Amino acid sequence: MNSQNKPPRVVIIGCGFGGLEAVRALSRAELEITLVDRTNHHLFQPLLYQVATAGLSAPAVSAPIRHVLRRQMKRGNLTVLQAEATGIDAAQRRVLLDGGEALPYDHLIVAAGATHSYFGHDDWAAAAPGLKTLADAFDVRARVIGAFERAERCASEDERAPWMTFVVIGAGPTGVEMAGTLSEMAQHTLPMEFRRIDSKRTKVVLIEGSDRVLGAFVPRLSQRAREQLTQLGVDVRTDCRVTGIDAEGVDYESRESGRPTTHRLASKTVIWAAGVAGSPLGRALAATSGAALDRAGRVVVEPDLSVPGHPEISVIGDLAAARSHGPGEPQPVPGVSPAAKQMGRSAAANLLRRLRGQPTRPFRYIDYGSLATIGRKAAVVDLTVPVVGAIRFSGLAAWLFWLFAHIYFLIGFRNRLIVMIDWAWAYWTYQRHARVVAQPPAAMEHAS
Amino acid sequence: MNSQNKPPRVVIIGCGFGGLEAVRALSRAELEITLVDRTNHHLFQPLLYQVATAGLSAPAVSAPIRHVLRRQMKRGNLTVLQAEATGIDAAQRRVLLDGGEALPYDHLIVAAGATHSYFGHDDWAAAAPGLKTLADAFDVRARVIGAFERAERCASEDERAPWMTFVVIGAGPTGVEMAGTLSEMAQHTLPMEFRRIDSKRTKVVLIEGSDRVLGAFVPRLSQRAREQLTQLGVDVRTDCRVTGIDAEGVDYESRESGRPTTHRLASKTVIWAAGVAGSPLGRALAATSGAALDRAGRVVVEPDLSVPGHPEISVIGDLAAARSHGPGEPQPVPGVSPAAKQMGRSAAANLLRRLRGQPTRPFRYIDYGSLATIGRKAAVVDLTVPVVGAIRFSGLAAWLFWLFAHIYFLIGFRNRLIVMIDWAWAYWTYQRHARVVAQPPAAMEHAS
Repeated sequence: MNSQNKPPRVVIIGCGFGGLEAVRALSRAELEITLVDRTNHHLFQPLLYQVATAGLSAPAVSAPIRHVLRRQMKRGNLTVLQAEATGIDAAQRRVLLDGGEALPYDHLIVAAGATHSYFGHDDWAAAAPGLKTLADAFDVRARVIGAFERAERCASEDERAPWMTFVVIGAGPTGVEMAGTLSEMAQHTLPMEFRRIDSKRTKVVLIEGSDRVLGAFVPRLSQRAREQLTQLGVDVRTDCRVTGIDAEGVDYESRESGRPTTHRLASKTVIWAAGVAGSPLGRALAATSGAALDRAGRVVVEPDLSVPGHPEISVIGDLAAARSHGPGEPQPVPGVSPAAKQMGRSAAANLLRRLRGQPTRPFRYIDYGSLATIGRKAAVVDLTVPVVGAIRFSGLAAWLFWLFAHIYFLIGFRNRLIVMIDWAWAYWTYQRHARVVAQPPAAMEHAS
Repeated sequence: MNSQNKPPRVVIIGCGFGGLEAVRALSRAELEITLVDRTNHHLFQPLLYQVATAGLSAPAVSAPIRHVLRRQMKRGNLTVLQAEATGIDAAQRRVLLDGGEALPYDHLIVAAGATHSYFGHDDWAAAAPGLKTLADAFDVRARVIGAFERAERCASEDERAPWMTFVVIGAGPTGVEMAGTLSEMAQHTLPMEFRRIDSKRTKVVLIEGSDRVLGAFVPRLSQRAREQLTQLGVDVRTDCRVTGIDAEGVDYESRESGRPTTHRLASKTVIWAAGVAGSPLGRALAATSGAALDRAGRVVVEPDLSVPGHPEISVIGDLAAARSHGPGEPQPVPGVSPAAKQMGRSAAANLLRRLRGQPTRPFRYIDYGSLATIGRKAAVVDLTVPVVGAIRFSGLAAWLFWLFAHIYFLIGFRNRLIVMIDWAWAYWTYQRHARVVAQPPAAMEHAS
């Protein structure tokens, strides 16, 4: 279909950190790029928990894709379509869209990301929403704010307790951030504005399957994070495996004291931060291309991020089971935003190399370190500095570092300004300004 | 039930302009006040169209009720409940809540507001949402932004045209604001960020049943408003009666040229700004108290805003069919926010007078004038200044006056600051920052 005179057609699916970076890296190339995303915005996921806990408004952590890429569109090598990619036809080189259209490509970059995984218990989803999209964040916000409102209406302490118990499952960065912030809200922001709620009765429980929080960090920082969580009032329970979730609470099995004991936590508000799996589009790609998926549903890729047997297709970001090819043994690439961005740049560079008839290069992940915040004035930082080595710190300094790093990486000057004002405001007043709820929670029965 | 020693129990339903003002006016009284609202926020409705057109984020035009009233709650005479009042039992003096609870009162102020009225055509609601709540605004935002996205995906101009035609029904202040802002978006904000959309093909049609826009203003200002709308590119059609609305467009009958002609406008995005009716709670109150409702479902009240035969119940704001008792004949009170606030203060003052055994006073509405904005640098202002008389102006000066008046009346210093920054930003960049859509429109079939 494509003649020699027309520029090669590139389709990029997904405008998260990986997809956006790939589009930008191809900004000056003579190509006909089509970017497909099912939403109209690029989302800065590291701050999504702030939308869920009413600290920031949705527009502060997201930016319209068309606005972010307006200059590139004006230069003329990019079309943006808001559409859901429902399938891929690798033989015919076409992406299928929800409206029935087929989008032909010469090169395809799949950056469709990840979704929650309930480890086979999809029935837990209604009672324990995850946090991946703006809609998820609004849902969690409505549940959290709604729980306090319901608690204020209860006639007895017994009836009130499950509304004032919040359970966060999974102590990775998102779970730790959610638990710390919920505890702050419960203790500082909300109780002074209620008549019947006793702030001492609010419980925030963080349940983790492994033996420590923030498992991706070194044990010393995990320990510091746990101490900071405890100081904020979070009840941290490691070595606990969740066995059931329903609208009234959570069942789990604890091995904290050695032999397993079973427990039940009565809670009306449960947040899932435990498992992620590759987007369903990974399965569609595997079916059509013969690629393998790993246990988490991610596409196993070649060293140059392409799909085996399909050099014209690359998979990047959370959907890719990729390895970093640095010195020494190849290492698995973590599912973090800097890795997605680096994969985006690498896939774009390899695409251009292929067009020039040059060999592609293997992907190498450069780890600059990790940050996680726990709450007001509490965070852990683990930096990898060339020559110097690792720099690790926690507490107030780490929190300030976290703050400015996140503002720096936000997309758009306007968002940086607004987030800075919002945070300064929240810091002095303990107020969370975005505490307005327009829609009821997604699972209506939950709030009844 | 109430002994002489306990403070009288006051229930106030609704925390719009009227209810909030009543609560505040009773702030220092020795009462036991319960404020019931089905949402958790006070909404600054005059700026809701900005949320719908993505100029402002939801938290910028709303404030958590608990935060707004935190000092009064701390002083101890106020409890706030987020609950839906489903009925009133005037004989037993109880308000019935959605959870089945009954809230006893000695005095009741009903400020439940208004809802859209489709003049008996409730089937129009799915295709033509109104604009009363934050949920409505998100719905309209998703439809407007979504329409441009769909237009970009269309293969032909014919298919594209209905997605690029926006119809606003009703040319009161909300309709005029929506039409003007949509036209601005269509011409300045969006087309430069699309590849296939031709901005000249965007149509914004404003349909009005009477012979002029902004019928509440003097004819000269209506004429100026119409000119400003036309300059912004809005197609204004007065003397037109809508006869049908469905997912594909609007049928109407025009008398512009004298004899009636019928027309069909193909449009995927229709916004209803034509009719309002009293909240359904008005019917419940009428049934239990014997009060009369007017044609718009508003409760006909005594000169002191009480319900006939029930001096312990007052109705205020958009739910009240009230008259102003100034010098001369009693005049109907318009459904505007200053009137609601004044009714709130009047009902509160009469309540205190009754408690002191004093006679109540008739309500008198003091009209300070009206403002309406049309779009960028365009507005009309009609002020009533004591001694001086009427001051009327339009254009840029009116727009600046409108701007600062609205910022002044916003609740909360933080919101004032954020709205000021947002507007300055939008003014210089033509950008509408809140263009992110989390949820699909309420009527899913609409977007299909």
